[in-house]
Amino acid sequence: MKKILNFINGEWCEASTGKFIPVLNPANGQVLAEVTQSSKEDVDQAVQAAKQAQKSWRLVPAPERAEMLYKVAYLLKERKEHLAQVLTSEMGKVIAEGRGEVQEAIDMAFYMAGEGRRLFGETVPSELRNKFAMSVRVPIGVAGLITPWNFPIAIASWKSLPALVAGNAVVWKPATETPMVAEEFVKIYQEAGLPKGLINLVNGSGSEVGNAMVDHPGIDLISFTGSNEVGAAINGRAGALLKKTSLEMGGKNAITVLEDADIDLAVEGILWGAFGTSGQRCTATSRVIVHEAVKDTLTEKLLSRIDELKMGNGLDESVKVGPVINRSALERIDEYVKIGQEEGAKLLTGGKIAAEEGLGSGNFYLPTIFTDVTSDMRIAKEEIFGPVVSIISVNSLEEAVEVNNSVEFGLSSAIYTADINNAFQAMRDLDTGLVYVNAGTTGAEIHLPFGGTKGTGNGHRDSGTASLDVFTEWKSIYVDYSGKLQRAQIDNY
Amino acid sequence: MKKILNFINGEWCEASTGKFIPVLNPANGQVLAEVTQSSKEDVDQAVQAAKQAQKSWRLVPAPERAEMLYKVAYLLKERKEHLAQVLTSEMGKVIAEGRGEVQEAIDMAFYMAGEGRRLFGETVPSELRNKFAMSVRVPIGVAGLITPWNFPIAIASWKSLPALVAGNAVVWKPATETPMVAEEFVKIYQEAGLPKGLINLVNGSGSEVGNAMVDHPGIDLISFTGSNEVGAAINGRAGALLKKTSLEMGGKNAITVLEDADIDLAVEGILWGAFGTSGQRCTATSRVIVHEAVKDTLTEKLLSRIDELKMGNGLDESVKVGPVINRSALERIDEYVKIGQEEGAKLLTGGKIAAEEGLGSGNFYLPTIFTDVTSDMRIAKEEIFGPVVSIISVNSLEEAVEVNNSVEFGLSSAIYTADINNAFQAMRDLDTGLVYVNAGTTGAEIHLPFGGTKGTGNGHRDSGTASLDVFTEWKSIYVDYSGKLQRAQIDNY
Amino acid sequence: MKKILNFINGEWCEASTGKFIPVLNPANGQVLAEVTQSSKEDVDQAVQAAKQAQKSWRLVPAPERAEMLYKVAYLLKERKEHLAQVLTSEMGKVIAEGRGEVQEAIDMAFYMAGEGRRLFGETVPSELRNKFAMSVRVPIGVAGLITPWNFPIAIASWKSLPALVAGNAVVWKPATETPMVAEEFVKIYQEAGLPKGLINLVNGSGSEVGNAMVDHPGIDLISFTGSNEVGAAINGRAGALLKKTSLEMGGKNAITVLEDADIDLAVEGILWGAFGTSGQRCTATSRVIVHEAVKDTLTEKLLSRIDELKMGNGLDESVKVGPVINRSALERIDEYVKIGQEEGAKLLTGGKIAAEEGLGSGNFYLPTIFTDVTSDMRIAKEEIFGPVVSIISVNSLEEAVEVNNSVEFGLSSAIYTADINNAFQAMRDLDTGLVYVNAGTTGAEIHLPFGGTKGTGNGHRDSGTASLDVFTEWKSIYVDYSGKLQRAQIDNY
Amino acid sequence: MKKILNFINGEWCEASTGKFIPVLNPANGQVLAEVTQSSKEDVDQAVQAAKQAQKSWRLVPAPERAEMLYKVAYLLKERKEHLAQVLTSEMGKVIAEGRGEVQEAIDMAFYMAGEGRRLFGETVPSELRNKFAMSVRVPIGVAGLITPWNFPIAIASWKSLPALVAGNAVVWKPATETPMVAEEFVKIYQEAGLPKGLINLVNGSGSEVGNAMVDHPGIDLISFTGSNEVGAAINGRAGALLKKTSLEMGGKNAITVLEDADIDLAVEGILWGAFGTSGQRCTATSRVIVHEAVKDTLTEKLLSRIDELKMGNGLDESVKVGPVINRSALERIDEYVKIGQEEGAKLLTGGKIAAEEGLGSGNFYLPTIFTDVTSDMRIAKEEIFGPVVSIISVNSLEEAVEVNNSVEFGLSSAIYTADINNAFQAMRDLDTGLVYVNAGTTGAEIHLPFGGTKGTGNGHRDSGTASLDVFTEWKSIYVDYSGKLQRAQIDNY
Repeated sequence: MKKILNFINGEWCEASTGKFIPVLNPANGQVLAEVTQSSKEDVDQAVQAAKQAQKSWRLVPAPERAEMLYKVAYLLKERKEHLAQVLTSEMGKVIAEGRGEVQEAIDMAFYMAGEGRRLFGETVPSELRNKFAMSVRVPIGVAGLITPWNFPIAIASWKSLPALVAGNAVVWKPATETPMVAEEFVKIYQEAGLPKGLINLVNGSGSEVGNAMVDHPGIDLISFTGSNEVGAAINGRAGALLKKTSLEMGGKNAITVLEDADIDLAVEGILWGAFGTSGQRCTATSRVIVHEAVKDTLTEKLLSRIDELKMGNGLDESVKVGPVINRSALERIDEYVKIGQEEGAKLLTGGKIAAEEGLGSGNFYLPTIFTDVTSDMRIAKEEIFGPVVSIISVNSLEEAVEVNNSVEFGLSSAIYTADINNAFQAMRDLDTGLVYVNAGTTGAEIHLPFGGTKGTGNGHRDSGTASLDVFTEWKSIYVDYSGKLQRAQIDNY
Repeated sequence: MKKILNFINGEWCEASTGKFIPVLNPANGQVLAEVTQSSKEDVDQAVQAAKQAQKSWRLVPAPERAEMLYKVAYLLKERKEHLAQVLTSEMGKVIAEGRGEVQEAIDMAFYMAGEGRRLFGETVPSELRNKFAMSVRVPIGVAGLITPWNFPIAIASWKSLPALVAGNAVVWKPATETPMVAEEFVKIYQEAGLPKGLINLVNGSGSEVGNAMVDHPGIDLISFTGSNEVGAAINGRAGALLKKTSLEMGGKNAITVLEDADIDLAVEGILWGAFGTSGQRCTATSRVIVHEAVKDTLTEKLLSRIDELKMGNGLDESVKVGPVINRSALERIDEYVKIGQEEGAKLLTGGKIAAEEGLGSGNFYLPTIFTDVTSDMRIAKEEIFGPVVSIISVNSLEEAVEVNNSVEFGLSSAIYTADINNAFQAMRDLDTGLVYVNAGTTGAEIHLPFGGTKGTGNGHRDSGTASLDVFTEWKSIYVDYSGKLQRAQIDNY
Repeated sequence: MKKILNFINGEWCEASTGKFIPVLNPANGQVLAEVTQSSKEDVDQAVQAAKQAQKSWRLVPAPERAEMLYKVAYLLKERKEHLAQVLTSEMGKVIAEGRGEVQEAIDMAFYMAGEGRRLFGETVPSELRNKFAMSVRVPIGVAGLITPWNFPIAIASWKSLPALVAGNAVVWKPATETPMVAEEFVKIYQEAGLPKGLINLVNGSGSEVGNAMVDHPGIDLISFTGSNEVGAAINGRAGALLKKTSLEMGGKNAITVLEDADIDLAVEGILWGAFGTSGQRCTATSRVIVHEAVKDTLTEKLLSRIDELKMGNGLDESVKVGPVINRSALERIDEYVKIGQEEGAKLLTGGKIAAEEGLGSGNFYLPTIFTDVTSDMRIAKEEIFGPVVSIISVNSLEEAVEVNNSVEFGLSSAIYTADINNAFQAMRDLDTGLVYVNAGTTGAEIHLPFGGTKGTGNGHRDSGTASLDVFTEWKSIYVDYSGKLQRAQIDNY
Repeated sequence: MKKILNFINGEWCEASTGKFIPVLNPANGQVLAEVTQSSKEDVDQAVQAAKQAQKSWRLVPAPERAEMLYKVAYLLKERKEHLAQVLTSEMGKVIAEGRGEVQEAIDMAFYMAGEGRRLFGETVPSELRNKFAMSVRVPIGVAGLITPWNFPIAIASWKSLPALVAGNAVVWKPATETPMVAEEFVKIYQEAGLPKGLINLVNGSGSEVGNAMVDHPGIDLISFTGSNEVGAAINGRAGALLKKTSLEMGGKNAITVLEDADIDLAVEGILWGAFGTSGQRCTATSRVIVHEAVKDTLTEKLLSRIDELKMGNGLDESVKVGPVINRSALERIDEYVKIGQEEGAKLLTGGKIAAEEGLGSGNFYLPTIFTDVTSDMRIAKEEIFGPVVSIISVNSLEEAVEVNNSVEFGLSSAIYTADINNAFQAMRDLDTGLVYVNAGTTGAEIHLPFGGTKGTGNGHRDSGTASLDVFTEWKSIYVDYSGKLQRAQIDNY
């Protein structure tokens, strides 16, 4: 049986507990490997290694740090297919999406390598004579990364790459469900020649390893992607310790379809947004807000396409919808479907665990559509994280915006409309961190800020140059070469 | 007796409790006014007004919002002397510094007004054909500002001006010691024509008003400047609620003086940094790290200048050192002096409450210098916030950096050296958010990021364009005009 | 008779020639003043003064330079109405537009004053250890400004304000037709306290004064707005002398109206774009490219509105269209109308010099619309600079883009369409420096780059932060503090 | 005999003239290859191909364009040694510098590939309601590149890579002396899969090919690096045609050595700056401005190191100084040495063509030092472009700055000083585009702006993001979604 170990200070090692838990293929329940389960002690070792390594790393010229990231980029590219296979086998998403996710990590590696010669700070004029003023970005120190199973390599790349190019060291706890692709990613860092101690992988549970990271005084920053419950707990705990935090949490993303929209295009967007990755993307479409006038047409067209969504093992190229991550997810989804029905929503299709030939041993849930949903129902407000979408009808753009904005999350929203005025109004008024026009709620590009407003985050963004604001701080530098005491705001007025 | 009221939804009003407390002049104990003491209910009213007002404000073109800020700038400029007088009378700093502080608010008003036509976001190329991508800054909503008494108008300006120009509404709790200048500042906003509800002033204690602000679901962001204890408590509490926070807290700032430094210049910097504002600036110099070789010369020169530091009422132009803020501060400082002596530090001058003619009724503490201090003593590690400075000797730049970085704070540090290599090494290695070369630890300019590393903050910065990252979030917008479903990272590889 | 003098080295003085020419009101031929006519010698004096003054000015902290610009902003604001009156009387545009133009100068003054604390350069990581790298903006030296009569104060503000805030000195030759508002503007600079020699006004002809400026070795940069013929001549001459040049020249701007456009809105845009400022804006609409399907409707609606365009003296608030600048302009326009008719275009309205009561003594040309124009006609290709617009019909967006791009100019274009896909395609494909969607070809805002592609310019832009690239150069600074020889690209690979 | 051909529209082809000229190894006069000599017709074909190719290329998403640049980067890296060998054999520089130069191209390829996802434009708030404003970078069209022999691949990379990533097509005329490495570079573009027509190589003389490029209406932009004479001629000619130009021309770079400098370090910097690349870098050190007090020490130390500068074929790893480019360069250098002697400068070493064993057949000139040079001598003012350096003594930093700035060029300058105040004063006052502190005049890094003030350029910069300002123009886009006519500066005031 393949064993997934920790990687601490440049060595692959078993956790101090000696315990392992199995890694399951969600498509068929098969045990793929077992993964070591760490304790506080392992976290502590990782942090010590990271602290030590960071002391030299910050002095390595950033362009030289970036050389290593370019190597990471090329290794990721070379192994794209292999990584996609590993990722699909432990996580379940269909292979085309697996490849897309690896591509995201590749793109991010090139992008962040490019920051080695950028990491721009500012030179500005001083208000005093013979004085020079500027700002530079400095690393934070040790970054603790806690990443989810739904984008196990993409999100890890979003966090580890900017952290490293900026001169930080990393302690990384991947999701317990997806340690295999994490191991592969760390091996690539290792092979690229990253000095020991700069990336440390600590496998284990959130309650044990995650909390130990949050509490450890040697970790200066927690960057977390996951659920709101866990995020809020981390944030309170880390907050009281005055630790920097960057959080990316839940969404309840909606596609709005206006009267004048290209309905067929909207249907494509909804199917891809709601059922891609079995609805387990943080940006998944879980609400459709449709103008009353086109509601029936849209619904019919959606239903007519449901049969195309072949379910099965994601490694099969013909499959369109894979399993959800595990049994308890399956049950939670089913629970929400029951709640929806109790709340009076009308189930149009799906609504149950798939039991067809060959699916029974996996965690498959039928693509599910509710209609006649109102915005106060729980299925219209809470994150389900499965292949379930709710249709809500409205009578105007203004009402659509209101419904869209009524939830506590603010990650992604999309609008389908042919009208430029509607589109620009929506761009302005949809209160989410990502807004799409005539495209679904998913499909962010790596060079733009990624994240959400309100309950989705704490103001920070992954991705793009915005993520540098998470992994660096500003140092303002003043050089007075006047040879005398000069007092800003006083001596010059 | 002058009464200071709240300002809520465009109206000056008494707090719901009916209670008032006196505002004292720290130079002579005189009661200057009394200030209303608010409760949760007042906070709630302010928040409701702010929420309502923000709905329209975000739609006002930013250049138009900025017009109001230019008016604020001009009114501040016009009333500079009056504001300085008010501020000195309730806070105690000498009038030249009072004017300097008002100037800081003026400069910030012009600067932030200039953001009305900037607030730059990015246009970037999309990775897909017929797709457009960009990011824009959006306001957070309602910003809760909690500001200290030591820079009662400057810090309020740092927070309220960017908040407003970016489209937020403000609920502001000033320090209980300095409500008078807060009232003046709000009047200026009012006079400049700021629509009602956009700035709300709620006077009262931190435990009542501050906590109510932190807990109120209608406040989206807390921007706090104050002590570490309070900051950590706020951050834990707000963090668990997933509220955005920006914190600016303590410092234990050092001036390093190397062998090759211009000693007279360093002496000027130390006197101004340690005893200006009676040591009550967050960037005050509270440690002097001096090379053994020049320690004696430096110490002598410092001592020879102590007599110039005339104490007294800050309104007297000839006074150089005013009172500290209140009686309990006086006692805390005196306590620290005793601790220092017990720890074995050698008291060179000062070390007691001033009892001279005319000072007894105020809160005056003699400028105090300790020498033979080691970096493990409490007086070398904890923030004293009074006119007390500790001399620590070292034998190299490396050791100086180590001592400088050994404290839990990371706000400001300064180095005096004639040598360019030393200077650049120090700029790189001093682990603080502000670094000065051949200038003291104070004197930040308003267009550079202000704030600190480690225990001083949570990664955010006031001042400059960096403060926009506190008061806005990124919205990434994608427009797909291809007329078909395009999948990033998948369809183009 | 009012005399307009030169302003050199802080003194108002007559030109060395002793000659004066009259300044005429184009609405009635009345002589308003007479203006001094300079020679090479005057230019030389101005340049010497500027060179001298610039030596100290570059050392004045930019925030302090900006203080003066804020004063300029306030004086412009205070005198807005007066300036508008002067401008309308010598230039002819209707008073509402005169006010708008002054507002543009006000906005620009505030904006450029804001650069005093910005003028951002970059800090970047060096590729070598113990080495620091950054770039700063430095002034060019003496900037020679040659400005046109159609926006006599706005364009002067676009050029002089960034020049000055960045640390340059200015020698300015305004158009001979509009010296009065130039004098007013310089007086404001004087009153704001700008040190002598920093702005020098030299009145006179292009052939004498303009050429002397281009040839003078003491002028480092020529920023010119005017015709293509003059621009090309200046550029060749200055180019051979390796002098920096920034040119803003002609346009042949089109409004495209697609099938799905809001026709009434398009009509508003065309009337304002084609006949505002009597067609004498560089961004004036001189072509309408309309989809065949809506051509008739559009044409009819346009014609039905022509009578609203009351002609007369611009100082009369009810007047919508003022005179053109002078007699020769009137004749040139009339010539073009004859050419159009000879080329086979169909004249729908206007087409002659206005001879009605009270207009005869001014330079009035009737608002003129041609239809059945083809893109190879001279009236469809050459800049007429008068109230003449040509309707060209097309059958698709692609054809509209092709027609739009077929001219040698590339200043401004506009498209009216309700469709978002059309709009974004047009934004991408219209080959002009300014693109408007559902707005006419005029109305640039001062904080965005202003200028055109192809024959319209030489790559530079006025306005916004882009104009800093005209008035500053980059200085890259490297500090090696390693104490040894390090060779980039060699020692680190 | 190897034949170097043109590369037009994706095909390698002979020039229309049928003529070839030999390519010589400057170290031994050996014929390495012969290169085709083009005419106007070849230029025209190249331009037609480029125009055609650019039409599609601008529509390729920039991140996809960048994919090709990453391939170029990797191919350059793979072939680094081979390219360095080719380059050294035809150009003469020592192999370590040859490798360094190729590394520069590699670094630039990665950097510019990184622009594929950047090419940042700005989103800004509009001053009007319901209006959106932004700017994007657009390509210029066809860029004509004219590059020199001294950095035959580095400078070609500086110009072609940003041109291509930004969406332009390229017509490239390399120096006639260095066509071999040009061919290698183009082959790499070809192999990387760049679509045909996007890079076109046209070999031939400046008078024939260069002028044809400048005159051709299909070339929108000329980016030239070379001599001032040629640059001025190009600029006048292109200027009159309103063609965009970017020029990088001569230098007369100085190293200043102050009293307090580390003399040994300065000596290292001078030897490397003056004699590296046999003094044929545009940033070569051709003046040493030394404080009188250290002049003798510096001179002695310099002389004592001269013997280390072994001359010979650059392919020999032990050689430190290679040949100059050709016979006429050798003669021009020798002529300048005679001029220096006639002017009264004192020749300390060198001063003649090397005639030692094995050098006679190459173009070798002995490393030459003049002292007692005054700043009005021709050898102190004109660019010699050979291994000749002139020592000028001064008595203060101010005088050093004056001497440094007294020449008509402004490319690079360096200062050696231990004193931070001197250093910052020099950074501010040295009037060159590149300033080095405690490093020689060469060694720019690829991510900072490269270029000079005054006679060295026309305000533009190669390298870094500044070079995007050469190869793109701004398009400002306004979308009015208010559904009504709104007039900026008028309706909102």
